[in-house]
Amino acid sequence: MSDCQQSLFLKALRREPTSRRPIWMMRQAGRYLPEYRATRARAGSFLKLAGNPELACEVTLQPIERYGFDAAILFSDILILPHAMGLGLGFEPGEGPFFERPIRSPADIAALPVIDPNDDTGYVMEAVRLIRASLPRETPLIGFAGSPWTVATYMIEGRSSKDFATAKTLLLAEPDAAQQLMNTLADATADYLAAQVEAGADALMIFDSWGGALSPSLYQQFSLASQQRIVQRLEASCPNTPLILFGKGCGQHLEALADTGCAGLGVDWTMDMGEARRRVGDRVALQGNLDPAVMLTNPEIVRREAKRVLESFGKGPGHIFNLGHGITPGVDPEHVAVLVETVKSWKI
Amino acid sequence: MSDCQQSLFLKALRREPTSRRPIWMMRQAGRYLPEYRATRARAGSFLKLAGNPELACEVTLQPIERYGFDAAILFSDILILPHAMGLGLGFEPGEGPFFERPIRSPADIAALPVIDPNDDTGYVMEAVRLIRASLPRETPLIGFAGSPWTVATYMIEGRSSKDFATAKTLLLAEPDAAQQLMNTLADATADYLAAQVEAGADALMIFDSWGGALSPSLYQQFSLASQQRIVQRLEASCPNTPLILFGKGCGQHLEALADTGCAGLGVDWTMDMGEARRRVGDRVALQGNLDPAVMLTNPEIVRREAKRVLESFGKGPGHIFNLGHGITPGVDPEHVAVLVETVKSWKI
Repeated sequence: MSDCQQSLFLKALRREPTSRRPIWMMRQAGRYLPEYRATRARAGSFLKLAGNPELACEVTLQPIERYGFDAAILFSDILILPHAMGLGLGFEPGEGPFFERPIRSPADIAALPVIDPNDDTGYVMEAVRLIRASLPRETPLIGFAGSPWTVATYMIEGRSSKDFATAKTLLLAEPDAAQQLMNTLADATADYLAAQVEAGADALMIFDSWGGALSPSLYQQFSLASQQRIVQRLEASCPNTPLILFGKGCGQHLEALADTGCAGLGVDWTMDMGEARRRVGDRVALQGNLDPAVMLTNPEIVRREAKRVLESFGKGPGHIFNLGHGITPGVDPEHVAVLVETVKSWKI
Repeated sequence: MSDCQQSLFLKALRREPTSRRPIWMMRQAGRYLPEYRATRARAGSFLKLAGNPELACEVTLQPIERYGFDAAILFSDILILPHAMGLGLGFEPGEGPFFERPIRSPADIAALPVIDPNDDTGYVMEAVRLIRASLPRETPLIGFAGSPWTVATYMIEGRSSKDFATAKTLLLAEPDAAQQLMNTLADATADYLAAQVEAGADALMIFDSWGGALSPSLYQQFSLASQQRIVQRLEASCPNTPLILFGKGCGQHLEALADTGCAGLGVDWTMDMGEARRRVGDRVALQGNLDPAVMLTNPEIVRREAKRVLESFGKGPGHIFNLGHGITPGVDPEHVAVLVETVKSWKI
């Protein structure tokens, strides 16, 4: 464990009082940064960048160096794990990710291999080790993975989807096979995250980007239950490493997510932060939730809307400032500096 | 007013007891139907179909004739109104709608013309008259429009959008111009809907497809407030015509929507129907909310999931069965017959 247990980020995640609110941004190592674009151009592609520990380390550190964010997050992708399972990840220019060999049948699901994270995703663990060694000691490093349901949508559909028709059909029509897939992914994800902790991650996060597309019954049965399974396995393997669950469009499930036993919840921008806090009480820390679209406007509006989020959460510990979703490529890097300055100078 | 005040649909919308629950489907006149595809092929394009009163009437009636739905909905598009304002609507194959002349500046907004619905959208009113004359007298006809915010996203972005960056930037950075746009659209929409009632519509519906993309403060200021303005104007111009508000991804705003004074709320599939009912009490009727993806599975699952929605709403009046969003093109028409039979035979 690194020497950052008293960092603002980890203290806020434990809901301990802090001198000011910590801030980091989802996708902070991203295309809005010229230095990121330069490194990515050298790498040749997104996959080569994510697959090269030295370059992944370089881009992970860039926003820390430029802005002094209170946490770093591993540069990687939620589809690295199914890629390691042999599905053949690719990226079409402007089209997003695809799998060469999507899974469609109970037989495909039963045939998924068990992953050794230190072997099959060894380059990720090497990146975590390099980043941890290169980061300021007091800056925590967040490891992450996709949620089983979200990862499964890509594995089944073979690509991004608007309505997840094929994936939902599997859940509805082949619930046993779907359950097996969720369990396989949950166990692989827990092992993958535990390996990141072993390699140096100080906190963990699970991204459930598509949980909000499910009906409540399917959400509970597949997305929530599989995240619960990961929480329980990590409580056994990494009891001292806090876990944040982030579900886009999952505002109505906030109480259920808090009940999983996770340390923190990511909140997307469609929910009022104060309302989220009233609903989950002091069970978990909350992370979020400025609308990423605000970052495209101008410094005055960035300041005003950031203050709205800070005020909405209110006084007291347990708030980690973040966007409500990843920062978009077209943002002026100067607006990010304004955001960081606004949050850092806010009286707690 | 036509002779359908005692129809199951209008009674349920008034929360009066009915012998069974009424059912219709959003986008019921759509590509899943072979007879729709045949008429559309004759028309040549979607716009020519929507612009031809005889053909629009023909496709509106097709699902009534095939399935005996309890309400018909005008075949049209939410972008007909801004098209009439001169923005130049087009459809790219497989790409969705676009406007040739999007609006981007306060000057563009100030220059938007006032529409005379009986003149500038006379073909829509002619379609309403034809449909009303052709429908069984006991079958109600629903007229509709898009919400000001949802329509504005297309007017500003010029096409479908993933993050509504340009539209949100207008709301954040030019709130006065944005407010003027919402007011202009709300007033034009209220007039457009009142003209549909005059032409024969028995109920009205507003589709807020993208309200769920807004932060709560922008939602209240722009989407909710402009829908409220329409409700108030319609209460004056069409006091006896019930209005349904449907907001996709707006589950957290259900109470606020019920407070507008509308007659009914459409509920998307991501919320439990019983939970929606508990939250709005007996203030409004509820319409929904089977996940459209269920329709792609098989008859057994269609029956099971439809019963889940019926049971979730529970006993008592005020439920209009529907999907939680529009039916998708790939659905087997036989599955729709199974759905209709399941709902019609359900003991209230």
